[in-house]
Amino acid sequence: MSGNDLVINAAGRAVPIHVNGKDQVPYQGVAAYEPAGTKRAPPIRSCKDYPESGDKRVPDLETALEKCGLSDGMVISSHHHLRNGDQVGLAALQAAATMGAKDLMWFPSASFPCHSPVIDLMDRGVVHHIEGSMNGPLGAYCSAGKMRGLGVLRSHGGRWQAIQDGEVKVDIAVIAAPTADPFGNSDGSHGPSACGSLGFALADSLYADHVIVVTDNLVEFPCIPWQIQGNNVDYVVEVESIGDPSKIVSGTTQITRSPDRLLIAEYVARFIRDAGIMRDGFSFQAGAGGIALAFVQFLKQMMHQAGVKARFVRGGSTQYLVDLLQEGLTDYILDGQTFDLAGVASIASDPRHVATSPFTSYNYHGKGNFASMVDASVLGATEVDLEFNANVNTHSDGILLHGIGGWQNCLFAGCSILAIPSFRDRIPVIVDEVTTMTGPGELIDVVVTERGIAINPKRQDLLDRVSDSDLPIRPIAEIKDEVEKIMGGKPEPARLTDNPVAVIKWVDGTVLDTVWQVED
Amino acid sequence: MSGNDLVINAAGRAVPIHVNGKDQVPYQGVAAYEPAGTKRAPPIRSCKDYPESGDKRVPDLETALEKCGLSDGMVISSHHHLRNGDQVGLAALQAAATMGAKDLMWFPSASFPCHSPVIDLMDRGVVHHIEGSMNGPLGAYCSAGKMRGLGVLRSHGGRWQAIQDGEVKVDIAVIAAPTADPFGNSDGSHGPSACGSLGFALADSLYADHVIVVTDNLVEFPCIPWQIQGNNVDYVVEVESIGDPSKIVSGTTQITRSPDRLLIAEYVARFIRDAGIMRDGFSFQAGAGGIALAFVQFLKQMMHQAGVKARFVRGGSTQYLVDLLQEGLTDYILDGQTFDLAGVASIASDPRHVATSPFTSYNYHGKGNFASMVDASVLGATEVDLEFNANVNTHSDGILLHGIGGWQNCLFAGCSILAIPSFRDRIPVIVDEVTTMTGPGELIDVVVTERGIAINPKRQDLLDRVSDSDLPIRPIAEIKDEVEKIMGGKPEPARLTDNPVAVIKWVDGTVLDTVWQVED
Repeated sequence: MSGNDLVINAAGRAVPIHVNGKDQVPYQGVAAYEPAGTKRAPPIRSCKDYPESGDKRVPDLETALEKCGLSDGMVISSHHHLRNGDQVGLAALQAAATMGAKDLMWFPSASFPCHSPVIDLMDRGVVHHIEGSMNGPLGAYCSAGKMRGLGVLRSHGGRWQAIQDGEVKVDIAVIAAPTADPFGNSDGSHGPSACGSLGFALADSLYADHVIVVTDNLVEFPCIPWQIQGNNVDYVVEVESIGDPSKIVSGTTQITRSPDRLLIAEYVARFIRDAGIMRDGFSFQAGAGGIALAFVQFLKQMMHQAGVKARFVRGGSTQYLVDLLQEGLTDYILDGQTFDLAGVASIASDPRHVATSPFTSYNYHGKGNFASMVDASVLGATEVDLEFNANVNTHSDGILLHGIGGWQNCLFAGCSILAIPSFRDRIPVIVDEVTTMTGPGELIDVVVTERGIAINPKRQDLLDRVSDSDLPIRPIAEIKDEVEKIMGGKPEPARLTDNPVAVIKWVDGTVLDTVWQVED
Repeated sequence: MSGNDLVINAAGRAVPIHVNGKDQVPYQGVAAYEPAGTKRAPPIRSCKDYPESGDKRVPDLETALEKCGLSDGMVISSHHHLRNGDQVGLAALQAAATMGAKDLMWFPSASFPCHSPVIDLMDRGVVHHIEGSMNGPLGAYCSAGKMRGLGVLRSHGGRWQAIQDGEVKVDIAVIAAPTADPFGNSDGSHGPSACGSLGFALADSLYADHVIVVTDNLVEFPCIPWQIQGNNVDYVVEVESIGDPSKIVSGTTQITRSPDRLLIAEYVARFIRDAGIMRDGFSFQAGAGGIALAFVQFLKQMMHQAGVKARFVRGGSTQYLVDLLQEGLTDYILDGQTFDLAGVASIASDPRHVATSPFTSYNYHGKGNFASMVDASVLGATEVDLEFNANVNTHSDGILLHGIGGWQNCLFAGCSILAIPSFRDRIPVIVDEVTTMTGPGELIDVVVTERGIAINPKRQDLLDRVSDSDLPIRPIAEIKDEVEKIMGGKPEPARLTDNPVAVIKWVDGTVLDTVWQVED
């Protein structure tokens, strides 16, 4: 990948001006880039070329790929609703391999350790490169410079934006569907592999040239409800199983037991209360990590005590959010993805538990989105610097380990809060400069650690609102110094080459940062 | 409009090759036209240009139109969910008139007598012409040759197709919403002006350059459920009232009391039973006309007697379809529009009563649609000829009086049935040649009159299936002859000029027929 021309963008980061043969726009600032042109226009189809009976079933994935005109260099997409239990994304790529395809671009909404056999497909030339989050072994493969193309990491909203704007043209979308009918109407809330919302596949269903639905729970037309519309689907493939249910959703999600992390969660809840964000009709978003779940429990107690009800909460839905709904502490759950069995049961049966999509929630190239209407978002990070810039993709050793998810998108909340321990494995989390910039500091309002709460000086309003509270509000530099003293200094800098292996896109499709190959 | 070049199309009808300045494709056959190219690509927008709070309210329609850049010659769309009670379509055009706009094209999903003041706007040059169904006075105005452009009549599916394919670029869509939030999420099932589904506005919301939502029932974000997504909406206008509830939905829809029409309804039900169409898991579609409603009642009795349950029924939903759902005679209602209060209450509360759109149900330029998966559709007509070609737009006097609605789309059902009296106002309905061809005879399977049932000879399978029944199966020519004897001859031919005033589009966007100016 050497020979890339680099430019310094508005965040001061060196980024390539070409990625995988396409010209790039360097990041220009949080809301500076003005998009031009029109959305991607998929081909016009005609009912005359589809069965009048509505029955689009074909015997297997190979047949479906063949009918979709699979050829070398195509973009094949799949989705992470089944998380580490997914059997469809890999099956599609392996079917393509059997058919002799080469140089495919795999465009998953996220990849998981279950997809590590794709490494073999990259080694064999079947897959050229991956654009999408690469967790675990795939990230390490990319970091080692072994992928033929550059990885492109996008937020959930950025993935929609890239498809919608035609930056990525999906040739064949392969959608794993926990329930589907022969016409292709599909849903995720029922069936042996139920996973909740299928929102991540929606963009692909609308904009891809060809769409294949793969299901292990075929029902008679009409599949009600449907989240993917059969009118966008070309072929339906019935298989024995689309995934391993025990890995698709947790039985229950686990709250942290670490005293430090429980303290962080409690600080976050108290901050949201004491800053006056927790008021009737407010809203918040929290993920399914251990700290976030604990935060929800603390906040719930405070809401009960104060007699406050939220208008909506956003997740990653879990038992804890479902409890809020059932106990009358929120009017609605606006669900981005469904993390545990309680979440799946709720979205399948409670009309107040509503499936959303990256379009409604996160797409920056729409006429607004939900993310900026959320009062507070509680997020994680691997690193944060004194300017409040934060990293979620690499650790301080520089190795790509995590995707962006909805993280960048959630920074647009009224108050974005990073809830993070001040160190991990004896490595300080507050640093001089983030190894990778995933989010610009001007959008990060509060950093909550077990050693204190740092408020971004740009948010004087928040500083004022908690000035009388007994919360441990401290300058971020002070917390950093304290941690460095305890840990015996700053983290070792990552040992990186000058060879780009991946780029981090901002929500508007511009290039925010570069991930560099690590030294051997 | 004279000076139009005409060509004879595959149905043998003379049609213009240019309509309102655009080249046309003459009808090539039911499923002969192969579309090329890509769907319309609306402009890419950015959240940076919309309020982070999600509050898109502006004080009034003028402000909204101004911000949408209203200018001469633009295409303004509105929708007929509020039927003859609609106050929004006209208000938008009158606001544009106040602002001095000229030569607008009005693109309603249908127009009603309440919209007849648009005649004045056409006389004054504000509106250049209308593309959309013109019922009553507007149709008469068009028929008299007074409109500056040609009327273009499309089916519900054809309207979606035209928008999707970019044949009609909507500049500003104005959507009347019985419930909406400040972000623009909108729904029709609740509020003082509740009308049920808002499916007819969906295409406009997706493809128009600018979208204005007008509501008289603003709720706090999020409006749940939403059928129109706020992410596609530019501005929200709050008004006192969007319509007259007494004209939006009937209190109850009325079954015919005419003995002849009741007999027709009974014949239709018996035919569907005796031809073996009425079986477990079957489906049918019936409108809200008097005969169709009576048919549903007859069929319901037969389903009860035979212990048969439908998989789904399609409407125009009414009390009668809701009864089927509640009595366990169908699994689902797939609702295209909601005609009475019982229908509105049901769609608002019963998850088995599902809102559909012209995309799911009717769009011919999709990957299939629901219409061809319906076992039997029961439809009306103003004329039918010996080749089973039928007319729903004009009467035998040639005056444009009705839109196409979903009629053309429903012809793709497994068995399409015209349920029609053999004469109206002493004018025979079965004719030598239809005045206007709205549907080609090869798609019309059965004509049921009070004097007998004519089966299209192309459907030998249906002829065989009822050969042993006691139904009055007769050749269509025999029924025609009998009626002409009683009525004293054939209908007077329409007195038409050679000046085209409107065209009838087929479901694929080709031109099926021409409506001619009537003589003074």
